[in-house]
This record gives sequence, structure tokens and C-alpha cells, in this order.
Amino acid sequence: MQYTNFKELIDSYKVIFFDSFGVLRNHKGVIEGVANTLNYLDEQQKPFYVVTNDASRGRREIAARFAESGISSITPEKVISSGMLAREYLRHKIKEGRIAYLGTKNSAHYIETTGLKTRSIHDLDLDNIDDITGLVFLDDEGFDWNEDINKAVNLLRRKNIPVIVANTDVNYPVAKNEIAIAVGGIANMVESIVGKTFIRFGKPDAQIFMFTYELLEGQGIRKDEILMVGDTLKTDIIGANKFGIDTVLVLSGNTPARKAEMRIESTGIIPNYVCESIAIE
Amino acid sequence: MQYTNFKELIDSYKVIFFDSFGVLRNHKGVIEGVANTLNYLDEQQKPFYVVTNDASRGRREIAARFAESGISSITPEKVISSGMLAREYLRHKIKEGRIAYLGTKNSAHYIETTGLKTRSIHDLDLDNIDDITGLVFLDDEGFDWNEDINKAVNLLRRKNIPVIVANTDVNYPVAKNEIAIAVGGIANMVESIVGKTFIRFGKPDAQIFMFTYELLEGQGIRKDEILMVGDTLKTDIIGANKFGIDTVLVLSGNTPARKAEMRIESTGIIPNYVCESIAIE
Amino acid sequence: MQYTNFKELIDSYKVIFFDSFGVLRNHKGVIEGVANTLNYLDEQQKPFYVVTNDASRGRREIAARFAESGISSITPEKVISSGMLAREYLRHKIKEGRIAYLGTKNSAHYIETTGLKTRSIHDLDLDNIDDITGLVFLDDEGFDWNEDINKAVNLLRRKNIPVIVANTDVNYPVAKNEIAIAVGGIANMVESIVGKTFIRFGKPDAQIFMFTYELLEGQGIRKDEILMVGDTLKTDIIGANKFGIDTVLVLSGNTPARKAEMRIESTGIIPNYVCESIAIE
Amino acid sequence: MQYTNFKELIDSYKVIFFDSFGVLRNHKGVIEGVANTLNYLDEQQKPFYVVTNDASRGRREIAARFAESGISSITPEKVISSGMLAREYLRHKIKEGRIAYLGTKNSAHYIETTGLKTRSIHDLDLDNIDDITGLVFLDDEGFDWNEDINKAVNLLRRKNIPVIVANTDVNYPVAKNEIAIAVGGIANMVESIVGKTFIRFGKPDAQIFMFTYELLEGQGIRKDEILMVGDTLKTDIIGANKFGIDTVLVLSGNTPARKAEMRIESTGIIPNYVCESIAIE
Repeated sequence: MQYTNFKELIDSYKVIFFDSFGVLRNHKGVIEGVANTLNYLDEQQKPFYVVTNDASRGRREIAARFAESGISSITPEKVISSGMLAREYLRHKIKEGRIAYLGTKNSAHYIETTGLKTRSIHDLDLDNIDDITGLVFLDDEGFDWNEDINKAVNLLRRKNIPVIVANTDVNYPVAKNEIAIAVGGIANMVESIVGKTFIRFGKPDAQIFMFTYELLEGQGIRKDEILMVGDTLKTDIIGANKFGIDTVLVLSGNTPARKAEMRIESTGIIPNYVCESIAIE
Repeated sequence: MQYTNFKELIDSYKVIFFDSFGVLRNHKGVIEGVANTLNYLDEQQKPFYVVTNDASRGRREIAARFAESGISSITPEKVISSGMLAREYLRHKIKEGRIAYLGTKNSAHYIETTGLKTRSIHDLDLDNIDDITGLVFLDDEGFDWNEDINKAVNLLRRKNIPVIVANTDVNYPVAKNEIAIAVGGIANMVESIVGKTFIRFGKPDAQIFMFTYELLEGQGIRKDEILMVGDTLKTDIIGANKFGIDTVLVLSGNTPARKAEMRIESTGIIPNYVCESIAIE
Repeated sequence: MQYTNFKELIDSYKVIFFDSFGVLRNHKGVIEGVANTLNYLDEQQKPFYVVTNDASRGRREIAARFAESGISSITPEKVISSGMLAREYLRHKIKEGRIAYLGTKNSAHYIETTGLKTRSIHDLDLDNIDDITGLVFLDDEGFDWNEDINKAVNLLRRKNIPVIVANTDVNYPVAKNEIAIAVGGIANMVESIVGKTFIRFGKPDAQIFMFTYELLEGQGIRKDEILMVGDTLKTDIIGANKFGIDTVLVLSGNTPARKAEMRIESTGIIPNYVCESIAIE
Repeated sequence: MQYTNFKELIDSYKVIFFDSFGVLRNHKGVIEGVANTLNYLDEQQKPFYVVTNDASRGRREIAARFAESGISSITPEKVISSGMLAREYLRHKIKEGRIAYLGTKNSAHYIETTGLKTRSIHDLDLDNIDDITGLVFLDDEGFDWNEDINKAVNLLRRKNIPVIVANTDVNYPVAKNEIAIAVGGIANMVESIVGKTFIRFGKPDAQIFMFTYELLEGQGIRKDEILMVGDTLKTDIIGANKFGIDTVLVLSGNTPARKAEMRIESTGIIPNYVCESIAIE
């Protein structure tokens, strides 16, 4: 582990992967200095990707939100989300019927672009589930937690179908010092109650990194030429370490400076580098 | 393990402990034959207790519900609930301030009989928590799951207070083949998200059996003269086994006859006896 | 939580429960000042007990080891060990056959005082297990880990018998900055591999505190007149808190001064008091 | 789920992935009919791979063992093992120093082909660990469990280094109805005792499937043209499902016919097909 100047760091890699929340943005908007850094990468014609645990919206919308905040260089094709992997799974493995989901209609819309039909658990009649061929956890919003989480439990007791968790995160920040339970946390509760094994997509699982790496195919990029930038040891750093690429922990999000060393020691998750943030002069 | 006639069984013990749900009642009401069996125990002047994971109401109300169903011999002093143990904890260990709770106002009323003040998480202002000295999970009803579970998470991030789970059950049956997530399941989710250690009361923990056993003090009853009757291996049977009393699994609730042997084998939780139900001729 | 003078503290309680390792002794022997404190308690005729997770020897031997180190006031009847609870369980629940064990012959000798026959897993022939009626984890020594832990796994696959873990500790200190895996850690591995539910005795489980409390029967001691002294939040403090007695964390063992506050905050396990050690002037 | 004729099944896929143990071989040797099936695939010029959780030896040795049993068509380049992924990790992420390992000298030899130096935990002096830059769990043999597992625990307490588990399996069969704890089971125990996060390679993790899939690069094979053949729901089937390829459960190994349906129901892990074995007429 070495404390490092971020600019020197990115100069020594050919491709950069960024986590989104805590690295590029926080609950107040885009983090200071990020626009500058991304401009620098564009000037250098250095490819970068945003690798994010998010299944609440498609890559187009994720890019659009950055554009609204004045960051136009994050185009849709630069965004890789856990929701995209879930959608890939559904496309390959579930070819008929209707997918029940917990989430907003908007999150389901993204799934429907595969041609699959969906039904919100909220609108589901448990006595009419013959066409339901899967269940996917998309978002913590868009349904009544009490009524609909219980409905999901009973759906899984009545019918043996694959269950997909499209975002492994168990919580997310909503304000300074305030978090909310994410759909991954809800999925963990349901999984432990029904006793079945769910399929999860998102960091730290290596599949999202592999998916991103495949986009570089044909460009002759080796793994040791890629740098993952993340604010969370247990997702960004361990996942990218395992995938075999170098990692930098930034202190602008989930891991404050005063806790970084202690957490690296206590978890045994060791980034190659540590930086204050991705801002460069 | 021996399949046994329930009447012969109770004739050979001096005191009987009954689980409530699945043994004495189910989602349709009091189980057939139960009245007869309890009358027989009363005729024999054989003491019995109802040992139940329930924190949604006090022992008086639990007894009253049996009385409404025509079972008058379950008097309040025969009922031992996990909620009583939680109340004991609060009485001994939290002597000032106000206890925040997740549950109905009715469930909190029971806690207030200790003299403690309470506040529903639903009514709690997170910016005004100076007087909050504990959090207790009482019931899965009485609050908005989405808003108030998240509020509980953030309360625990702002203030380091003891957290009590007054019912360890993770789910409960609401109809044939339909369950609901219980407050113990919600507590597990919150605990894993905040990373703290909660204090749990209820079977399988031996404390509830000890508490019941103490009621027999002075009567010279040995542990091997007590029989625990339960329908669930993972709570009733393992807990009573560990406490050192004999156990009978009845097949009228959570463990259907066709699954009993397989579950005993796969869990390694071995009751002394197995009976169809507690009904006697 | 209040930082307190230990002498004032014990003056305000009628009975003191001490953890052993980290409070009374460490890897170098009896901790400085302990003799003095125990003498003071004796002068005051204040009862105290040593409540310890230990199944490697009986209470007589535990007392004898203190006596060898010059502490004669810890008589056998002042020692309550998790091994004693395991022995109670075996006495109440397993009345015939032979108990297989992992541990030293000496640890088994203690079990045999109940009249039960035992057999070391090391000496067990897996093709001759008809008389084996239980398995107990007693000590991490006295057997070949590779051969005999695997033998225990296969015993449990061949025969459905109760399994008792007589010490829940997963590790223990053997020197400054050096630990060893304890029998509780080995039991956790075996349990997860065979998928069965084991019965565990020892702190933090409240049963060991109840067992000790019962020794005070007839003396009219209320729970709020008892103080538990421990060096470990996750065993001594949470267990005694749950049992309903007051707790003091001492910094002479497992919880060094520099980590105490952080650990109390991160675990949510809150002692009533914190003291440097039990030494008094 | 459909019960299917295996020959028809493989006729409808372009590439076949086989698990090894329980599919191709068992404790008695190569499973009956396997030679015939592999010959058929060769005749059809249909590529196949052996995807196996094994870090005790290199692909050359794994192939050699099949050759000794008369199966010559499993050449080294057809074997993908979890040990290969671990070796890739070490090659990319640990470029200097010496890797400590638990396993046989032979298992370490395979790691050394990356140019890395190794040292058996058995030969390690805990006071001389300056050059140790990682720890890898390779095999359950080749060391003294008691002494050396404890040494691994203390190594990780003294030095914060990445820990790699090169085989996630927690046990493996050694005879009919007899299993042994695998290195993955030992790693789980050590991880829970030191409280750090280890990096695991092997099924069910999707990385081993991606690694194999990359070998097909340039051949224009789509995921839906690949079939994974496995005997274990929790590794082979869930992992390949998640990766997005079709799956067949064979009943020649870990999942006997009488338990298949119940396990599919209770785990929610659903193969596309079920076959008795891979034998074809």
C-alpha cells in the first residue's frame, strides 16, 4: 500500500475502471474535481468505465444523470451496472413466461428490453402464478415493504423458480450520516427465510469486472494495465483484486481517511494504492 | 426416538411445558383435542405451562385469547413468553430514559408496565434522541416497514444503545401454506446492516426454559420430571434438550409427519419422543 | 459506561463473578494484584465465583492450578466451568451407551464422574459404533487433528447422535500475540461440514450465568446485586448483560485500552463500567 | 427440469464442460461408460473441458491420472482447475517475495511455475516472515493440521497479506459413505478466527467458467451452445447457471436419484436437465 498522487497513478495505466458512488458522486452530487479528471482522461484518449452496483435504472439513465450534472463524457456505453448482468442472465437462462420483480416500474422497464415480460410483486396475485418463471430483486423502492416482501416469500414457497439479486449492496447512503437498506439487504432477509440459494450480481463478484474487461477485447489490453478506483474495500477493492487488476482506494466516500488503515488491517483487503480522491490539479 | 401415545407420555412426567403455535393452536384456532388434554391435566392436578415466542402482547392477553376460544385453564400465570424475558431485561438493565420500539402500541404497553417510558420508532424524530436508551423489536406490525426499519438503522448509527429482540422467530404462519416475516427476521436484517450484536430472547435459547423452571421452585421438581411439547425442532426441541429436560415432537404444526424423520436426521436434533398431536382419547 | 475505581465498584455489589483468563490470569500466570483483590473480598466475606469457558479439566483442577500460583481462596466450589454444564447435560439427557469425545483423557475423566462411559475419537473404530450415544468436543489437545477430526465427521454421517460443544471459545491465547484454535473453533468447522445443529455450552450463553446464580439460592441475592467482571465483550459482557446483571470490562486481557471504546461502539455491547484491571491498592 | 437421454442432450450443444469428481470419476476410479462418451465426443469433434475444483496438482498431472485409467482424450489443455485461477491471481497480483502455503510440496510446485518462490507453512519460522507476501490454501495434506493451521492463524495476525483459497470445496469423498475435510473447509475455519476476508477460487464462483469460456475465443461459440455437466447443485449447477450456460445434473455422484428432486426444491437451484449419468449406449 502506498499513498499516491492520483494523476501519476492514472498516467501509468492504460484503462481506468471507476466505482460511481463515493468516487464520482455522493449524496450532494458530482464530487469536486471529478469533471477535471475525466476531461484529462478524455484528452489523453484513455478509456475509462463506470462499474457500478445499480439495478434501479439502465445505463442510458445513469449516463443521463451524469450529463445533467455537467459530466458529459460518461456516455451510456461507458457504464457497466450489476443490472446489466442480471439482464444478461435473464436473457440467457429464462426464455419464457413472466419475471416477477421487487422494484420500480422503471427498473423493470430495463429488464423488458430483453423481450421478457415482467410483473411487479405488488400487482401479483399469488393464486395466479402459473406464468411466473423467475423473481428478480431490482430496487428497494416501488412497492410496499410489508405486504410485498411477504408476498415474495410466499411466491417462493409456492413455486420453485430462480431468484436473481440484481444489486448485492445491502445499504446505500442517502445523506451525510444517513443510509437506507438496499435491495440486496432485503434479498438477504428473504433468502434466509425461504432457505433457497439466490443468484447475485454485482461487486465484489468478479463477473462484473469480466464483463467490463470483455468490452476491451481486441485492444490488446493486459490486466496489469487496468486500474480499479473504488471507495469500498469489501466490494470494489476485493472484487478487482480477485479479478487480477490493480486497485486504488479513494477516501472520498465509504472509507474515511481516519479509518482506512484500520479497515485494511482488520479485513485483510489490501489495495495497491490509497488516494484522497480522484481530483487532480 | 420412539413413536408414543401422548396420554401415556404425560402420565410419566410431573410437569408439562407446551409450545403454543402448532401445538395448542394453529391459524384456524385451537387444535382439535387440546381442550380435552388440558382438562385431563387439570383433573390430574398436573401443572403445565405455555412457553411461547411472543412479544406482541402480554401474558394476560395471551390467556384471554385462549379463553375466548373456550380454553379457560390457560390462566395468565401459566403463560411464559419471550416478551416477558425482554421486559425483565429492560427492568434490570435499563433504568432511565425511553425505549424506542418497533411494534404495535399494544406490544409497547406491556413493556411500560415496568415503569419504563417508550416511543414508537414511527413517532421518533431522529434529531431528538437524547433520551432514547434502548431499542426493542416487539412486533412486525404497527409501523411502516420501509420508513421505520430504515429509521431504526439510522438510530443505531447515531447512538450506541442496547438492542433487544423480544421474539427470535423469523417467520410465523398466517394461513395454510402462507407465512409472514416475524420481527426476529427483521431484526436479523437490521443487525447485519449495522454490524452490532443484538440481545435475543426466546426459544431455542435456554433462558426462557430456566425462567419457567424457576416458577416451580420449592416444589421439588427435578428436570427429568418435566416434558417439553413442541412442533419445531430448531426452537422447542433443541432448546429444551439443551436445558436438560425431555422432549416430544408433535406433528400438528411446523413438522409434518412425512418430513419428521428426514428433518431429525438432517439437523441432528433428536426429540425423546414423537406423537401425532397432543390429543388424547 | 463510566471509567471507575474497581474497589469502589466491588464495594457496591454483594456478589462478584469473575472471568478467569484475561481477568485473573494470563499466559504468564496470575495477573498482578489479583491476590490482593481476592483477599479483600474474603475479608469482606463477599462471595465470588469464577465463571469460565473451560472443558479441558474439572473444577478441582482449575482450583488446584490457582492454588499452585499462590491463590488459595479459589476453592473448587467457587469455579463454574462450561465443562460442568456439558456434564450436567450428559447426566440429564444421555443415560446409556458411551460418549465419544475429542480431547485429552483427562478432560474425559471429568465427564466419567457422571457414571458415563467414554471413548476417545482417537481410539474409536468407525465400524464399531453401536454403543456410541453422543459426541462431545472437550479440548483441542489429546488427538490427531487431521485423522480424528475427519473421524468425527464420518461418525456423525453414520449415526445421528447429539453433539455437545463443551467450550464455545474459538481460540485462546498461548503467548503474547499468539493464539491457538480452541475446540469451539474446531466444532464450528465440523458443524458446518455435517450440516447438523450442535449444542453449545459457555459464555455468552446465559445458561452458565443461571447455573452460577442458582448456587446463591436461599441467600436472597437479587440480580442487581451481582457484578460480572470480564475482559471480552463478545462473551463475558454480552452474556452477563443478557442475563440481567451489571458488567465491568477490564482492560487486562483481550480488550486493550486503546481498542476498548472503538469495540464498544462497533459491537454495540456496552458494559456498565470499564476498569484498567481488578487490582486494588 | 426434464429427465433426458444424455446422448440427445450433448448432440444439441456445441461444447461440453464436465465436472470431474462424481461425473467422470469416483473413489473407485473412472465411472462406467465415461470412456465411451468421451470417445463419442472426439468422433464428433465436439470440444469438451474438465472444470474442476482442485489445487492439489497441475493440469498435466490431472490429465496424466485420467490417462493412467485409460482415458487418453483428456489432455492437459482440456483441464481447467481452481488451482490454475489461483496461480493466475498470484502471477498478476503478487510479484515479489515468497508465498506461504498449506499443502503438499507437489501442490506448491505448480504455483512455482509462475516464477514465484514458496514456503510451506510447515517449514516457516514465524519470527522470520519479512519476505512472505501471501498465503495460499492448496491441499489438506502435506502438513501437520494442529501445528501448522495454528501457525497460519498466527502468521495472519502478524502480517497483513492477501490470502488465497485455491479450492473452495469444504469436503471430498474418500470412499463410499466416507468424506474428508477439504482445504476449503480448513480455510473457512481460519478465516472466521482471524476475521479477514479471503479470496476464493473455484465453482460455484463464475470466474472459473469465464476462464474456460475464454479458451473458446475466436470460435464464435455462444453461451447458449455450451452445456455444463455436474453432480453437485451448490457448485456445478448454480455456478454455471449464473454464468449463463445450460446445466445438466447427473446422479452418478454427490446427488443420488432419491434425493435429487427434494434438493432441487429445497435449494431453489434448478438444472435445465437431469440424467442418470453421462454414459451413452
